Amino acid sequence: MPKISTRGIEMPASPIRKLAPLSDSAKARGLKVYHLNIGQPDIQTPQVALDALKEIDRTILEYSPSSGFRSYREKLVHYYSKFKINVSADDIIITTGGSEAVLFALMACLNPGDEIIIPEPAYANYMAFAISAGAVIRTVVSTIENGFALPPIEEFEALINERTKGILICNPNNPTGYLYSRKEMNQIRDLVKKYDLYLFSDEVYREFIYTGSPYVSAFHLVGIEENVVLIDSVSKRYSECGIREGMLITRNKELQKTVMKFCQARLSPPLLGQIVAEASLDVSEEYMQEVYDEYLGRRNFLIDSLNKIPGVYSAIPMGAFYTIARLPVDDADKFCAWCLSDFEYEGQTIFMAPASGFYTRPELGKNEVRLAYVLQKDDLQNAMIVLEKALEEYNKVNS
Amino acid sequence: MPKISTRGIEMPASPIRKLAPLSDSAKARGLKVYHLNIGQPDIQTPQVALDALKEIDRTILEYSPSSGFRSYREKLVHYYSKFKINVSADDIIITTGGSEAVLFALMACLNPGDEIIIPEPAYANYMAFAISAGAVIRTVVSTIENGFALPPIEEFEALINERTKGILICNPNNPTGYLYSRKEMNQIRDLVKKYDLYLFSDEVYREFIYTGSPYVSAFHLVGIEENVVLIDSVSKRYSECGIREGMLITRNKELQKTVMKFCQARLSPPLLGQIVAEASLDVSEEYMQEVYDEYLGRRNFLIDSLNKIPGVYSAIPMGAFYTIARLPVDDADKFCAWCLSDFEYEGQTIFMAPASGFYTRPELGKNEVRLAYVLQKDDLQNAMIVLEKALEEYNKVNS
Repeated sequence: MPKISTRGIEMPASPIRKLAPLSDSAKARGLKVYHLNIGQPDIQTPQVALDALKEIDRTILEYSPSSGFRSYREKLVHYYSKFKINVSADDIIITTGGSEAVLFALMACLNPGDEIIIPEPAYANYMAFAISAGAVIRTVVSTIENGFALPPIEEFEALINERTKGILICNPNNPTGYLYSRKEMNQIRDLVKKYDLYLFSDEVYREFIYTGSPYVSAFHLVGIEENVVLIDSVSKRYSECGIREGMLITRNKELQKTVMKFCQARLSPPLLGQIVAEASLDVSEEYMQEVYDEYLGRRNFLIDSLNKIPGVYSAIPMGAFYTIARLPVDDADKFCAWCLSDFEYEGQTIFMAPASGFYTRPELGKNEVRLAYVLQKDDLQNAMIVLEKALEEYNKVNS
Repeated sequence: MPKISTRGIEMPASPIRKLAPLSDSAKARGLKVYHLNIGQPDIQTPQVALDALKEIDRTILEYSPSSGFRSYREKLVHYYSKFKINVSADDIIITTGGSEAVLFALMACLNPGDEIIIPEPAYANYMAFAISAGAVIRTVVSTIENGFALPPIEEFEALINERTKGILICNPNNPTGYLYSRKEMNQIRDLVKKYDLYLFSDEVYREFIYTGSPYVSAFHLVGIEENVVLIDSVSKRYSECGIREGMLITRNKELQKTVMKFCQARLSPPLLGQIVAEASLDVSEEYMQEVYDEYLGRRNFLIDSLNKIPGVYSAIPMGAFYTIARLPVDDADKFCAWCLSDFEYEGQTIFMAPASGFYTRPELGKNEVRLAYVLQKDDLQNAMIVLEKALEEYNKVNS
């Protein structure tokens, strides 16, 4: 039997995926499982998008342009202008989800062995895309004690060497919910400029910011226009995770041209999703406001509830729909697995993502979990009761 | 400005894409341009698939499983059994087009620097995926004189060294239309077995075989079950190029597990396309027969017409919907560009793909073009008249 590649072996299996069979067997035992483990919103996709899907009257489901439909990219220009992100349709490349945008950005900018610096905890799949591209991820650690603020910029600078090609941030952040301040973004800008690095900025959660602080896009930073690569996606914004429509946006013409070669090789982004995503841009403000209010209410409820459970702590996330909470357990991996395999409360249990999957160093986040508030408040309420009971029983059993 | 990666620079820009601006300007001059350059069929997508699209009544367009819907994979098992390809639903991984299947196969099986052997001319994007994966493509040359039959197996064997990890074939072949015989497939099997290589077999054109010769799938080869990776796609089969639904099929469990890690990182294949592709499996035999008859008629007409033009030669392709033709010109790149930029006949011109884009060596295929017979016979007929006139005039101007 021929050998698997080294990168194939090194690719991380998601810690959430590892627990999925336990969740399945909990369901098989008749339990109601509250899924706080993944960012699959329960929010309805906008009606205008669902209508557009019904109205497709093409008789040939043919290739679309490799960069995506021009009409869609032109409408996106208007969307971004509302956030003072000034781009032209030519700066926007439609990708197969934000995932492909990250992969193509790394492929086009980094040689194998080149490094990028990422604050951790971080979205676990960045690591997978880095391995695919042969890139090396170096991390600076943000901590729950500091509410997952940007680590001191000196820590970034200390990692910079001749292989360093960029910095990757997610803002607002998955998994922490942190929103980088103007001051932090300026520090990043200065460093990017000083060392002529790429700044990869994943801003898919910009619609979900719950604080008075301004949203500072990487595109707002003056003086590094050629360095910025914006990663975006409609998945979370319109509850359209399945259609796989993302964007890679850069004003750097040479980079655009290079990314387009990768896009042409895979021929085109999904046709049907593009039609849905384009129509979604006509969504009403009421829909966006309702969704926003819903997440805000859930966030407030979840964080309040978590901090009322003895020994549990969560900072207040300023954006996205995740939080990292510290639990009074020795090993959150074990605890999350135990909740699914050995615990139930009134026929219910809870599925959380152990935070270890968002850190690169095994010693970090051992007593932390990520919770996605993608459930309705009734379910969240029950989930919090279940969590409190689970912690009580787990610590009884394990003491 | 930070640097572009080496692989980004090395990525080939498709020769067809290079001519696209000339085609646009020909259209701007009011010319009718016959597109024989790309494999975008003009055939209608099956009604059962279009109906399924209309009937989608989901209110959340959520993630689908990373390996694709189980119901779809189970229906595919039945589809493949009709071709005596015996696989289980667990052997099938749904990918974002055949493109992603090729990329993930190379990522999972080859380390950077590892080699695969491909008969050329070959589908140009294999080269792009190889560069993405850091893989090295070595080629053996099939020739128009031999009807693009498999080059002598000794030529493959002569290239094998400690970095050789696999052989990649496309069968029936794009761009040549060649169908590998039982004897040729057995030669490949023996070599794969002898050196324990992977056999990547792209069989997306299996529905379009116009000869009495049997279709020998890589999955029919006994004794290399763990070595075979089948690449497939619904794009051409159901005229659904835009939905981006492919498959990677292998009985090698370790490889399945590894490919799944790449699939999990990109979360899921397109949801909407999967629904359409699953429904397409219920297409009537009448539809498939009509499409088949249509392509067969076009092939017969096209090859006859080509061989009647003085100095033109095409072998008879046994499958797919392409042929490589030799033209009485010095440089097909120049000629194809000239047809778009400087020529017209009664308000028409022709867009063909120079064959140079399908060869790795610059000295090969210089007087060859690839023609896709994806146009109706009336248009094909006019295109052949235009080609004959173009050759006459080009050779007058250039003699």
